[in-house]
Amino acid sequence: MREFIPLSTRFIDLPAGFEMKRGGVLHGARIAYEVFGQLNAARDNVILILTGLSPDAHAATHADDPTPGWWDDMLGPGKPIDTHRWHVICVNSLGSCKGSTGPASVDPNTGEPYRLEFPELSIEDIADAAVFAVRTLGFERLACVIGASMGGMSALALLARHPDLARSHINISGAVHSLPFSIAIRSLQREAIRFDPDWNQGQYCEEHYPQRGMVTARKLGVITYRSALEWNTRFGRACMDSDRRLDEEPFGPEFEVESYLECHAHRFFRSFDPNSYLYLSRCIDWFDLGESCGSNADEALSRLRIEKALVIGVQTDILFPLQQQRQIADGLRAGGADAQFLSLESPEGHDAFLVDTGRFGPPVASFLSALQPA
Amino acid sequence: MREFIPLSTRFIDLPAGFEMKRGGVLHGARIAYEVFGQLNAARDNVILILTGLSPDAHAATHADDPTPGWWDDMLGPGKPIDTHRWHVICVNSLGSCKGSTGPASVDPNTGEPYRLEFPELSIEDIADAAVFAVRTLGFERLACVIGASMGGMSALALLARHPDLARSHINISGAVHSLPFSIAIRSLQREAIRFDPDWNQGQYCEEHYPQRGMVTARKLGVITYRSALEWNTRFGRACMDSDRRLDEEPFGPEFEVESYLECHAHRFFRSFDPNSYLYLSRCIDWFDLGESCGSNADEALSRLRIEKALVIGVQTDILFPLQQQRQIADGLRAGGADAQFLSLESPEGHDAFLVDTGRFGPPVASFLSALQPA
Repeated sequence: MREFIPLSTRFIDLPAGFEMKRGGVLHGARIAYEVFGQLNAARDNVILILTGLSPDAHAATHADDPTPGWWDDMLGPGKPIDTHRWHVICVNSLGSCKGSTGPASVDPNTGEPYRLEFPELSIEDIADAAVFAVRTLGFERLACVIGASMGGMSALALLARHPDLARSHINISGAVHSLPFSIAIRSLQREAIRFDPDWNQGQYCEEHYPQRGMVTARKLGVITYRSALEWNTRFGRACMDSDRRLDEEPFGPEFEVESYLECHAHRFFRSFDPNSYLYLSRCIDWFDLGESCGSNADEALSRLRIEKALVIGVQTDILFPLQQQRQIADGLRAGGADAQFLSLESPEGHDAFLVDTGRFGPPVASFLSALQPA
Repeated sequence: MREFIPLSTRFIDLPAGFEMKRGGVLHGARIAYEVFGQLNAARDNVILILTGLSPDAHAATHADDPTPGWWDDMLGPGKPIDTHRWHVICVNSLGSCKGSTGPASVDPNTGEPYRLEFPELSIEDIADAAVFAVRTLGFERLACVIGASMGGMSALALLARHPDLARSHINISGAVHSLPFSIAIRSLQREAIRFDPDWNQGQYCEEHYPQRGMVTARKLGVITYRSALEWNTRFGRACMDSDRRLDEEPFGPEFEVESYLECHAHRFFRSFDPNSYLYLSRCIDWFDLGESCGSNADEALSRLRIEKALVIGVQTDILFPLQQQRQIADGLRAGGADAQFLSLESPEGHDAFLVDTGRFGPPVASFLSALQPA
């Protein structure tokens, strides 16, 4: 059981007895975060970033941690989210294994890692914990909350549950709920881990680690994060050089695309807690903004009290397809927000916001530069 | 090791020493087939059907076997492929476990099933074996060869290698080769089987059957055979009734779409030989019409000697995407064939030809009714 915490991460303790949506209670829990850029004297230049399933709080290179961040092209001095102007807080999700309390953390009641004794996690809990962190830092009003992928769901939950916190919102490749295709994919990912004998009902150890299940889950993730279009250009039908085909097992990898998946999966499988993966994956399936607000999704969106929004989707995204971002923009607009919907042609699929920053940068920069301080 | 052979299936012995493309040789092999409709006096009303990965030769209900066939809505008296007019032969692919010789068949040299000793299988071998069967039945000229999915590849290989056999061609959701997205999916499916300890390098037994691997492979198949669009309407976010949630394991299925996948996979996993699945899956990845003809795919298509063709694709197909059927039609037309390309709006994805026969029936019927006998 390991947690994976970047150097420059800071922590905020959640209150004792932090109540979770589905009935659990956490004691001694904490939220990991990093900050980028200076707070101004009026304390009105604060932006909150909520992340997807796997990233940590180290969104960008930092004076205390010069290692690359996961959003370096988007966040920093002179970047689209410009730290010359904005004071940016990136929060690691509750339930993750990257610093915030999750299934890999030690349960103070037992002195052992929670594993499957961690309470049922929901997107709403992730939002509430992030809001507690922001308020503890002394901020009652954010200029903008930015959420991508699962973070787009967390941001909508935040806006619904804490209506006066954020003045504007950027939603990137997010959704009000999961659709059955993406539920089916995540269900298979979870099965790959659950049915790996080394997972051992969550009681895995380092020596018998559910490597096979994690590799399969990650490969399936990478397949659905990217797009067929990108891979046609990038790999086509290229085969691996024979000297790289070390795996001489029958029916083993032969094509470059198979080697690419293998590399990605092997970079990932030891850097994420399998139990945390299961909790986060399931909460994406469970989330339903409409249900969360006791209405339907469109009505819930129309009740969110923000002034301005930018909603970006990618035409090749098969996991959070474009109509889901259009729905968010339409719903926000129906509630009176000045909501802009942007459909990007990027071939990079759901992951485009991480890699195709040439397309994402300008609209985000333009939205933020037109934003007045909160 | 079991084979799964429909009642009305007939057999043709392949010649002793049947040579395969990648160097193997089969002895005592056979091809399973079924026939539908009467041969006319001129013997010029023969249609050949080549199938996808999993179907047997029992394409339709038959006097000798009244159980439903896999293409009953398309094939029969008065159906789009009208057995009042046509004498239809459906061939089970070489390498399958549904009657034709494959990895589950007994190797006459050893008296034991081939398992992984079965020679490397290619789409070209499937085509050659089907042609041998057709010629043995006494036919040197077919009115039409119809191939869907993998069968669309087999049909193109047949046309390239046996240029005077068929006068026309219907290609449904086929391709000149596999693209990296579908290779990646099939690679994961094969891994699910290969890494199931019960597969045991192909030496599995009935008591220790690679159920887990086969279930995962099939679920991944079903996810990519259908479309997100269909599932949004069909399942939405509906949850299973609590009394149907027998599986109380942590992170077990909760949504209807998960239950649907479970049912499909459990219907399949015992009815297909895992080794045969691996051989057929790999030969789909390997096939490349251009390479097979010593040229590129477009040139190879333009050299196919047929008079008329109908090429049908489905807009929601993510496994054999629409541009691949357009490519076939364009290539055939460049070679002088009267080739019609049809892009169907069906929400049913790659499987549409099996289920959305309301859309597929009319164009196929219309194409065949305009066809002169061979």
